[in-house]
Amino acid sequence: MLAVGLMSGTSLDGIDAALVEIKGCGLNTEVNLVEFETYKIPDEIKSEIKRACLEDKSSVDLICSLNFKLGELFADAVINICNKANIDISKLDYVASHGQTIYHIPRNKCDLVKSTLQIGEASVIAYRTGTLVVSNFRVMDMAAHGEGAPLVPYTEYILYSEKGKGVALQNIGGIGNVTFLPASNCIDDIFAFDTGPGNMAIDEACNILFGIPYDKDGEIASKGIVNNEMLDELMSIKYINEKPPKTTGREDFGQRFVEKIISKYSNLKGEDIVATLTMFTAKTISHNYKKFIIPNNKLERVIIAGGGAHNKTLIRFIKEELEDIDVLIQEDIGFSSDAKEAIAFAVLGNETLNNNFSNVPSATGAKEKVILGQITMSPRVFMEGDRKYGFKMCKE
Amino acid sequence: MLAVGLMSGTSLDGIDAALVEIKGCGLNTEVNLVEFETYKIPDEIKSEIKRACLEDKSSVDLICSLNFKLGELFADAVINICNKANIDISKLDYVASHGQTIYHIPRNKCDLVKSTLQIGEASVIAYRTGTLVVSNFRVMDMAAHGEGAPLVPYTEYILYSEKGKGVALQNIGGIGNVTFLPASNCIDDIFAFDTGPGNMAIDEACNILFGIPYDKDGEIASKGIVNNEMLDELMSIKYINEKPPKTTGREDFGQRFVEKIISKYSNLKGEDIVATLTMFTAKTISHNYKKFIIPNNKLERVIIAGGGAHNKTLIRFIKEELEDIDVLIQEDIGFSSDAKEAIAFAVLGNETLNNNFSNVPSATGAKEKVILGQITMSPRVFMEGDRKYGFKMCKE
Repeated sequence: MLAVGLMSGTSLDGIDAALVEIKGCGLNTEVNLVEFETYKIPDEIKSEIKRACLEDKSSVDLICSLNFKLGELFADAVINICNKANIDISKLDYVASHGQTIYHIPRNKCDLVKSTLQIGEASVIAYRTGTLVVSNFRVMDMAAHGEGAPLVPYTEYILYSEKGKGVALQNIGGIGNVTFLPASNCIDDIFAFDTGPGNMAIDEACNILFGIPYDKDGEIASKGIVNNEMLDELMSIKYINEKPPKTTGREDFGQRFVEKIISKYSNLKGEDIVATLTMFTAKTISHNYKKFIIPNNKLERVIIAGGGAHNKTLIRFIKEELEDIDVLIQEDIGFSSDAKEAIAFAVLGNETLNNNFSNVPSATGAKEKVILGQITMSPRVFMEGDRKYGFKMCKE
Repeated sequence: MLAVGLMSGTSLDGIDAALVEIKGCGLNTEVNLVEFETYKIPDEIKSEIKRACLEDKSSVDLICSLNFKLGELFADAVINICNKANIDISKLDYVASHGQTIYHIPRNKCDLVKSTLQIGEASVIAYRTGTLVVSNFRVMDMAAHGEGAPLVPYTEYILYSEKGKGVALQNIGGIGNVTFLPASNCIDDIFAFDTGPGNMAIDEACNILFGIPYDKDGEIASKGIVNNEMLDELMSIKYINEKPPKTTGREDFGQRFVEKIISKYSNLKGEDIVATLTMFTAKTISHNYKKFIIPNNKLERVIIAGGGAHNKTLIRFIKEELEDIDVLIQEDIGFSSDAKEAIAFAVLGNETLNNNFSNVPSATGAKEKVILGQITMSPRVFMEGDRKYGFKMCKE
């Protein structure tokens, strides 16, 4: 099957579109990335999304309209990625769309119940592209009393797990998070948690010290010297030593945190600060592995994805810290660090269409395994004689 | 198949749940109402819905949470209607849920694009009831450039149309609206429009003059005398004579309108005013038929649904006005006036599951016929050995 996975994160970096060829399902899934691109979100829509996310700025008319506008934008991404790959869009079997999260209530509080809200109308994507769309993956896990996140552990399980081999899938986005696939190859033994900062602190320092958004290829860090006093102080932060399950965010390792560190160590060269923060991210990862994974599990391989996979200094530091373990980036095994999440949703969509469960209760906290996603049929399913497919109630 | 259709209108009168047996699809659909009930919406949720509908009171956290709360309420309605009918919920094949409309933008205006927003999370209904859910029917028609409404004409077409017989399906809710099914029995010839006030003006007068919410069985009107001067004035209102397509609402025939009329005709007895407003509703219907349907079509039968079908005086007036035409209420043909809309959505859900188009472009303005609705699978489809059914990609 030919599918497009769409992902648009809360950072609003853009709409990731991964065109994939996919065969089989569950543990027999074979997925091959055909084309990938991140499409920019126009500024006026970006500002509407930001408004829609705020309790005191959002309103029903904005959300109603933005749901359809984002549907159009997601449809554009599907059309563009097919054009880029020179593939006729009518050959597409389905689109799997994560949507744009505009609110998430992880647990009941006051009058608000546990819930999540992703928008980007699937009907608009289906109508514009003439393709079946699977969307809204998080809501069913929440209906099943889970937190609706993380959802990638299932795809990591089916794509990366190997019986007898403990594998850590490390993502280094703004935050660092890991999914551990145990050697038992049993889905119920999977666990996942946030290791600490990913690129967030490094990016902030680059912005404050050098006026650039991030340390491309880790070049700045490569010229600096790690300062042990600063590193020791950073490693003593409570979160790093807390027992999983645990999650962190911008409030812990964002702008304010970095400003404080820079002002305290203003005697250091900028390069040294960036190098130390890079080592800090590397060490939070290795420290968490050594404390919470390795003692009870066989860990043979680490595969890194996310923007951090491109930071060569960071990867070198992690390799040094985990010297007995095989540390790879997605590209080393023929995958893509940037496309990983969009591919994950294509895989999740495939599971939906095969009536398979695809949440990992040990990762989300759900009471049970459930089928994720909602299916919007290709609106013109009967008008194209050569690709008539559709829903079938197949009672047995 | 056994299904529950759910409808919750903007009047917030309650959640209509129709348990139906349904066979076939399209023009071969046979539907049999097993049980019906309207379930109250708790006051605190009613007030949240009202807030969620207002541009200046709504917010993203409220909408996110309310979507899940309404999902729970809709799930309760499904469970309760099955209990009432003594039917094991695991026998249910699907639920079709209209959802609660909280916003509708019929055409682009300023920064807002044409769109519609119904909430009441389908995943929650599916999880709680263990049943497949079809929901969100209006969005695809809007994606296809329609107005997303009215959607009942399709179900009226498949349930009531007869080749060679022109049939008018008149609904008398707050507003009166008609779907005309032409003798050609061709879906493209169907048209629909609002005839004028339904019960709205009568209800308002009952409230102001007698402190009661409506004229039960038309008893008050039956004791009054129609005042011709007042009736002539009402019938001269521009809307009544306007050419379809046309729509009207509370702003034209609501509280303010009735207050003005009552104060102008304060010399009349309360019963006479109610009788005259009842005749006014009857005459707006017959006048529109005589002006816009009968000249170009064979009209043999009128079937009335909605609360107005229970107003015996109103029905008598309509029969007198349309004396050569067979005027019936839903109950006369073994159907239910109150359950009609909830049944309609059960029928639309059945069409979705049969991959059939179910909008009527001549009624909604859509550019083409499309498959409506989004499918949420029963989350535990594989856990119940005796009723394994699911999605199948059936390419040909």
